Amino acid sequence: MDLHILDHRLRVTSICKNGLENFTHPLIKLIFLRNRTRCKFFSLTETPENYTVVLDQEGFKELPSSDHLLVESSVWLPLNVVSNGNASSSSQAVGVTKIAKSVIAPLAQQHVSVFMLSTYQTDFILVREKDLAVVIRTLEEEFSIYREVGGESVPVLSQDTHNGLRRNDREVTQPTVHPVVIPQNQFCVMSLDPDTLPAIATTLIDVLFYSSSPKDGAPPCPELDCIKFFSFSLIDGYVSLVMDTEAQRRFPADLLFTSSSGELWRMVRIGGHPLGFDECGIVAQISQPLADSDISAYYISTFSFDHALVPEEDIGSVTAMLRQQREEPAC
Amino acid sequence: MDLHILDHRLRVTSICKNGLENFTHPLIKLIFLRNRTRCKFFSLTETPENYTVVLDQEGFKELPSSDHLLVESSVWLPLNVVSNGNASSSSQAVGVTKIAKSVIAPLAQQHVSVFMLSTYQTDFILVREKDLAVVIRTLEEEFSIYREVGGESVPVLSQDTHNGLRRNDREVTQPTVHPVVIPQNQFCVMSLDPDTLPAIATTLIDVLFYSSSPKDGAPPCPELDCIKFFSFSLIDGYVSLVMDTEAQRRFPADLLFTSSSGELWRMVRIGGHPLGFDECGIVAQISQPLADSDISAYYISTFSFDHALVPEEDIGSVTAMLRQQREEPAC
Repeated sequence: MDLHILDHRLRVTSICKNGLENFTHPLIKLIFLRNRTRCKFFSLTETPENYTVVLDQEGFKELPSSDHLLVESSVWLPLNVVSNGNASSSSQAVGVTKIAKSVIAPLAQQHVSVFMLSTYQTDFILVREKDLAVVIRTLEEEFSIYREVGGESVPVLSQDTHNGLRRNDREVTQPTVHPVVIPQNQFCVMSLDPDTLPAIATTLIDVLFYSSSPKDGAPPCPELDCIKFFSFSLIDGYVSLVMDTEAQRRFPADLLFTSSSGELWRMVRIGGHPLGFDECGIVAQISQPLADSDISAYYISTFSFDHALVPEEDIGSVTAMLRQQREEPAC
Repeated sequence: MDLHILDHRLRVTSICKNGLENFTHPLIKLIFLRNRTRCKFFSLTETPENYTVVLDQEGFKELPSSDHLLVESSVWLPLNVVSNGNASSSSQAVGVTKIAKSVIAPLAQQHVSVFMLSTYQTDFILVREKDLAVVIRTLEEEFSIYREVGGESVPVLSQDTHNGLRRNDREVTQPTVHPVVIPQNQFCVMSLDPDTLPAIATTLIDVLFYSSSPKDGAPPCPELDCIKFFSFSLIDGYVSLVMDTEAQRRFPADLLFTSSSGELWRMVRIGGHPLGFDECGIVAQISQPLADSDISAYYISTFSFDHALVPEEDIGSVTAMLRQQREEPAC
């Protein structure tokens, strides 16, 4: 398998809920007016807490500085695993499950923090730029590693990285087992032809920027049962959308597409209080047992919490697995 | 002919050029998300100076107060002339030309300031609410006057208005003859089915909110020859657009429609410095000679200047007429 270090230098930011209006102008530009910006990596995820915006430096320049904007201080690089034909795994699972043992677990063991961003097309593993040498040394046995530079894939030779190499020598502590919440709403992971993005513009704008104001007296989903979660990304020209079935009904059915199985997903939200960006092993804690059971999972980190999406038919066994994990002493 | 006093209480506002970003959120709501607002009268006109926004009280509530927003202090009421079948005029002209002698000239004589807003569908004559009694007394001989109240047209009886009636007793001064500019660009006055507004959303958003930033190296129209002018209105469910042919080319040709003659229009901008809202007779000064020559004209007032649009084939005679007006002593 190949691991690609993509040619995007990313910032992870958060817009507070009541500050979104101030960012409508740059965000609409980044979402809909591709020929007005050089941004190639853009992701916006609404959660009950805030809006997480992950974007490259070109996109970041569009955001006005504001009290409503929090910016994680690091530059993050997206990694991407590409199967090069040799199906070394017999797994039918998709998403982070496929990379749980080969990428996520080894990085957690080396105390490298990751920020995950699953999309319809692929799973991006974001690592801090300063951790890159450790990442490469950790993964080079398992992967052929390439660095994308100006559209070219340049092989990364291990000796390139031995200078300045250092293992992340943080104190090894027993990993925290975080509380989880399993909301009742069902999610879809979808895409659409970017050329048809204008056709859903007003609906998407309505959902993203105006959905907080009550519109039509529909009873809000009770706080404890449903979660507000909507994710849009436009990365290298590919659109990915994650939304619950209620939001999905607002879009024209003929433009959005999902995988042929039309699967519905349930969410596991990880974290009782905001997770921060320094703790390692959070993704591993969820993805390893899913991989053991060959259960597909998307995984979307946000500024405050992490979110795994698992197939609806597996939510029972996932719930049991999570309960067991929380009852057993961590090993 | 009937004159309707429409059931909208309007504010006339101006957003400064570099403040538009702060108003993107409410303006997009007012333009595209009709079911999220009770605003029924909305007009946005970009000129080189600023953005003039005319909207009813429901819409006005959506605009955040800001240093970038100027608000004329009065409440304005829109009047609308409806031909009730008896074609009393043999004129083929459209727009303000039809109402020059019956409405605009008499109001000017009574020193009532008007703010004109021509659209594809009709011409709105905005008068200050406090001038309403004078307006009614001035126009009741020529028109059957109705007041729209909650969707009903209620006849206005002249005795209703005699209480508190007062003529506008401003000092009668010789009217100023304002300088005019005649830019080179050609304009279209267009409409579209409001249900197809979503289909042009991204283009309209681009033109309205992002056209100031240079996009594609196209040489800007030289300042002296062309004028930046774009007007959008959504009034009682009807859309009207006024744009030059360069902007028109950016929209899909099959959605916007214009009158069957497909006429192009040239602009006469009136005013060497901002006109303010108190001077009377500015519209009359232009519209009367146009009416004498039976030349159609749209007329769009903005916060700073007035703009008449005349058929391209008439621009020669209009130019000559304006030159003569400026050379002769005002009578």
